[in-house]
Amino acid sequence: MLNAFYIDKLVREMRTEGFDAVLVAPGEELEFLTGFSPMLCERFQGLFIKSDGRCFYICNLLYEGEFRKALPDDVPVYTWFDGDDMAEKVKGFLEKEGLMHGVIGVGGTAQAFSLFLIADACPVTWRSGKAALERMRMIKTPSEMESLRESARIADRVFSEILDYIKPGMTEGDAASFLLRRMTELGGKRPECIAAAGANAAFPHYMGTSAVIKERDSLLLDFGCTYRGLYSDMTRMIYFGEPSARERTLYNLVRRANEEAEDLCRAGAYIPDIDRRAREVLDEMGLSHTLVNRLGHGIGYTVHEAPDIKASNPIHLEEGMAFSIEPGIYIPGEIGIRVEDIVLIGTGGEREVLNRSTKEMIVL
Amino acid sequence: MLNAFYIDKLVREMRTEGFDAVLVAPGEELEFLTGFSPMLCERFQGLFIKSDGRCFYICNLLYEGEFRKALPDDVPVYTWFDGDDMAEKVKGFLEKEGLMHGVIGVGGTAQAFSLFLIADACPVTWRSGKAALERMRMIKTPSEMESLRESARIADRVFSEILDYIKPGMTEGDAASFLLRRMTELGGKRPECIAAAGANAAFPHYMGTSAVIKERDSLLLDFGCTYRGLYSDMTRMIYFGEPSARERTLYNLVRRANEEAEDLCRAGAYIPDIDRRAREVLDEMGLSHTLVNRLGHGIGYTVHEAPDIKASNPIHLEEGMAFSIEPGIYIPGEIGIRVEDIVLIGTGGEREVLNRSTKEMIVL
Repeated sequence: MLNAFYIDKLVREMRTEGFDAVLVAPGEELEFLTGFSPMLCERFQGLFIKSDGRCFYICNLLYEGEFRKALPDDVPVYTWFDGDDMAEKVKGFLEKEGLMHGVIGVGGTAQAFSLFLIADACPVTWRSGKAALERMRMIKTPSEMESLRESARIADRVFSEILDYIKPGMTEGDAASFLLRRMTELGGKRPECIAAAGANAAFPHYMGTSAVIKERDSLLLDFGCTYRGLYSDMTRMIYFGEPSARERTLYNLVRRANEEAEDLCRAGAYIPDIDRRAREVLDEMGLSHTLVNRLGHGIGYTVHEAPDIKASNPIHLEEGMAFSIEPGIYIPGEIGIRVEDIVLIGTGGEREVLNRSTKEMIVL
Repeated sequence: MLNAFYIDKLVREMRTEGFDAVLVAPGEELEFLTGFSPMLCERFQGLFIKSDGRCFYICNLLYEGEFRKALPDDVPVYTWFDGDDMAEKVKGFLEKEGLMHGVIGVGGTAQAFSLFLIADACPVTWRSGKAALERMRMIKTPSEMESLRESARIADRVFSEILDYIKPGMTEGDAASFLLRRMTELGGKRPECIAAAGANAAFPHYMGTSAVIKERDSLLLDFGCTYRGLYSDMTRMIYFGEPSARERTLYNLVRRANEEAEDLCRAGAYIPDIDRRAREVLDEMGLSHTLVNRLGHGIGYTVHEAPDIKASNPIHLEEGMAFSIEPGIYIPGEIGIRVEDIVLIGTGGEREVLNRSTKEMIVL
């Protein structure tokens, strides 16, 4: 099955970029467009989508059966054999498909070394096609917006439930397991969770599970799931016992960075201005340098997609965009604080903050 | 930690290829050279090894701490921030390291789209460096040879044990679990196993586990593990109850293809001749077209590395090479047969077939 609605959108993006074709290798992008993705091994393979909307697939003979089954009958599947010179065979296929001297944009998972071997054998120009593939689904349809809202409702609900469950003596893993299980029970798929106690939260991508939550610890919970394929993603802090004055001050600074940045979000807003606003708030205490990553990321069929909310993404918000706003303060060995919501620019161009959980400091 | 012995070998390969540097992105190759590899996300990062042997690392600010810890102090770690234009920042680092207008070979895991963005911003020429990285460790040292032998001994031993355990009524998964557990108990790491009953063996990369083994079924077992980092990989067939005349004939054909190909292996042998010999044997019954993959693959610190044993690899065997010889007959829906050993070209240039398990037809 090919996703005709999105292939049509991709073709429009390709024309803007001047691509003659786009190459999508195994991975999430291929699964999204075809409903199928095999293991990615070292043998070159991928779906080519041409600027007239027609598609073909190239793979090793080993994979032919899987793709002949996964793709419509009118999509050619060209195969090469381990005993062939891969690049020479691919050259023949690209020639047959009229792509000699063509410009081909490549998606996020294509392996570089194969493409350089092919480029040595035949005159094609490879370019990054990742941005075009991201723009293809950057503007959400009304039904996708509804799924994002429902997905955020699931996240809000499990967060309200964990407040009655979690207590000192439990581990980070106990907190994560509770949220993962409850998201699944409420109809969410692919649940994900970071639970970071105390100073562990100073690592934005913390992966541990074993630390025990102590009295006077903080607990950072960053979690989400999909609903009809679309992701939620939110972060809240929980404090056990009375926080210190410094914790209160820093928490409220992050909260204000989050809220002031969200206040700027509407159709027409310039993305670098939103990033700057949050960093200005953090800099009231000289702390924006501790926010070592982007202020936010687009979200949809993956957790991270367009549009990034950062100084180096000079575009304006549009109706149908959805993204996180997640300022933080990260001081290694001492403290980590993050407050994250998903914001949707809904029909009419106004922001909807999809997460409704309180941003008042939560002290249990 | 940097693996100085292999970086020195790589530098010699780079000179042959005319590379000014090699780029190794997160994955097995990076772990091999540095002892560490982070998650691969969409943010460009990697180790650059220059033709004078000096190294530097480029990554997003988020990952700086991990690499500062993993690498020696004299290896620069250059970072870019989400708010930067990644390609412009990388250009500055490459300029500082004297790589403008340089030729850079890239390893197996580098993501194509990032490299095209960098190439748009600065004059470097990317080439495939995968072959150079594979040649770096294609010739095994005496101590690596000893590890390959021990790893094969573990595989042989668990195969002899499963003959007393396996019986009709068990599932493919039962067979796989037994082998995985016993390889681990005998000191093997990273155990892997394909167990395919009856016609499931017609898929060379079969991934199922649930089929129940029936009377008169065949069972294909393809398995191995590492010992001190070096892999084993062997395949044998087991038949339950008297096989049909056709099964006997086809099994013996595959066995003969395996043995005649192995007989040709010694230092100086031309790899395409070895592949051709096995296919000639299969073609005595017109069946070489069912062998849809290469006859064999090199093996060492990964299961698949140089040298491939196939018509399109026109090189000669040398002392210290290790590789599989694994002819098969694959007829979808009907039958799958494979017999696989690891062959080492040992000191003196003679072949050692590392797997000693019988290739007589095994009927239980």
